[in-house]
Amino acid sequence: MNLTISSVKALTFDVFGTVVDWRGSLIREGKQWGKTKGIQVDWPRFADTWRNGYRPMLDRVRRGELPWMNLDRLHRLLLDPLLSEFGMVELSEAEKDHFIRIWHRLEPWPDSVAGLRRLRKKFMLATLSNGNIALLADMAKRARLPWDCILSAELAKHYKPDKEAYQMAAELLGLAPPEIMMVAAHPNDLRAAQSLGFKAAFVARPLEWGAHTPDPVPDSGFDVVAGDFGDLATKLGA
Amino acid sequence: MNLTISSVKALTFDVFGTVVDWRGSLIREGKQWGKTKGIQVDWPRFADTWRNGYRPMLDRVRRGELPWMNLDRLHRLLLDPLLSEFGMVELSEAEKDHFIRIWHRLEPWPDSVAGLRRLRKKFMLATLSNGNIALLADMAKRARLPWDCILSAELAKHYKPDKEAYQMAAELLGLAPPEIMMVAAHPNDLRAAQSLGFKAAFVARPLEWGAHTPDPVPDSGFDVVAGDFGDLATKLGA
Repeated sequence: MNLTISSVKALTFDVFGTVVDWRGSLIREGKQWGKTKGIQVDWPRFADTWRNGYRPMLDRVRRGELPWMNLDRLHRLLLDPLLSEFGMVELSEAEKDHFIRIWHRLEPWPDSVAGLRRLRKKFMLATLSNGNIALLADMAKRARLPWDCILSAELAKHYKPDKEAYQMAAELLGLAPPEIMMVAAHPNDLRAAQSLGFKAAFVARPLEWGAHTPDPVPDSGFDVVAGDFGDLATKLGA
Repeated sequence: MNLTISSVKALTFDVFGTVVDWRGSLIREGKQWGKTKGIQVDWPRFADTWRNGYRPMLDRVRRGELPWMNLDRLHRLLLDPLLSEFGMVELSEAEKDHFIRIWHRLEPWPDSVAGLRRLRKKFMLATLSNGNIALLADMAKRARLPWDCILSAELAKHYKPDKEAYQMAAELLGLAPPEIMMVAAHPNDLRAAQSLGFKAAFVARPLEWGAHTPDPVPDSGFDVVAGDFGDLATKLGA
């Protein structure tokens, strides 16, 4: 382990894409639901369209064009146009709720739970996700993600990569930024954390957007670059 | 289980006194520290004086006479006069830090961990404590308290029994108040939660203030009255 990261006491994790496979989970749940309903939908495109709709909406909240709302509410706002686009009309409110809550039931990457268990022996582990607290707590309970603490952009009422989200985490953990390492599969999240003094670990998740997406090129400016959570644990001496 | 509590999905727990034995823990740590230092202190009185100083200070924050500060900072503010009162002068900053952090190392009552493990199979378990997030996360990690989620008055910047603390918990859990049961050894905490629509479970902790304190008389207005966390799990069908 290099010297610059020996000060690290806590790891904060991006969740969607980094810890859980949102795309695979949405596709699996969608297919299952479609089968019981006898409905044919292009579920990979459905998943990508929903996820792609999220970023511009979130940016509108970040710019103050929309009032603060948590991720469940953002997902709800995106759902009706999405359902229309895919010809899925006449869903009941209960069915819509079921769709929103797919995000509470996302499944971890195969290495996530075992890697987190190793890391937890050495570090305080917290989420630092744009997902809301209820979503993250439901997900953790179901998937047995061993967090010490669930932190969310919801607590700062500022979505990542706004600086307030990272500052909130440092304040609530009672740690200085260099004592915290942000872990993510997304360079922009890591760079925002680094600009506030956090350490950064990039974990490659080449399958986040499906099998054919090229692996993002890891930035040489990150403190650790890992292939998965097992590799991250090894590189951090856990 | 009676019908009025069949709607409950999450339990929120008071922590100091209800989950952990703050007094016994402070006395044990104090004695140990005193032995290594060769210092004689009346540790039971020290513990009680520190804890008794907390409520008026916290009420000053609640009334706006002091700015918001989290419990670590309140404990730090109380420490210097306390040390003077007990003739413990000339402590280094590191030793003072060590004292503040005793509150992060409080030990659970003997039934707490096993009872929480049973309850967790049926309910979402969250803290709802006046302790700050870092304190609660450190305590949980050390004592293996199996929380699904750590919530604190710190997130509302309002100490219990201010209504904002309970409202924050309902909002972050994404639940309506009748879906949440507050668990505490303190009637005032339970009554504040009930006034907002929470269910309430009183757990007797007759040793909180030492062996000779009379057991508080349980209020007949609570939904459940339990002798310890095992009894609570049984009464809630967990």
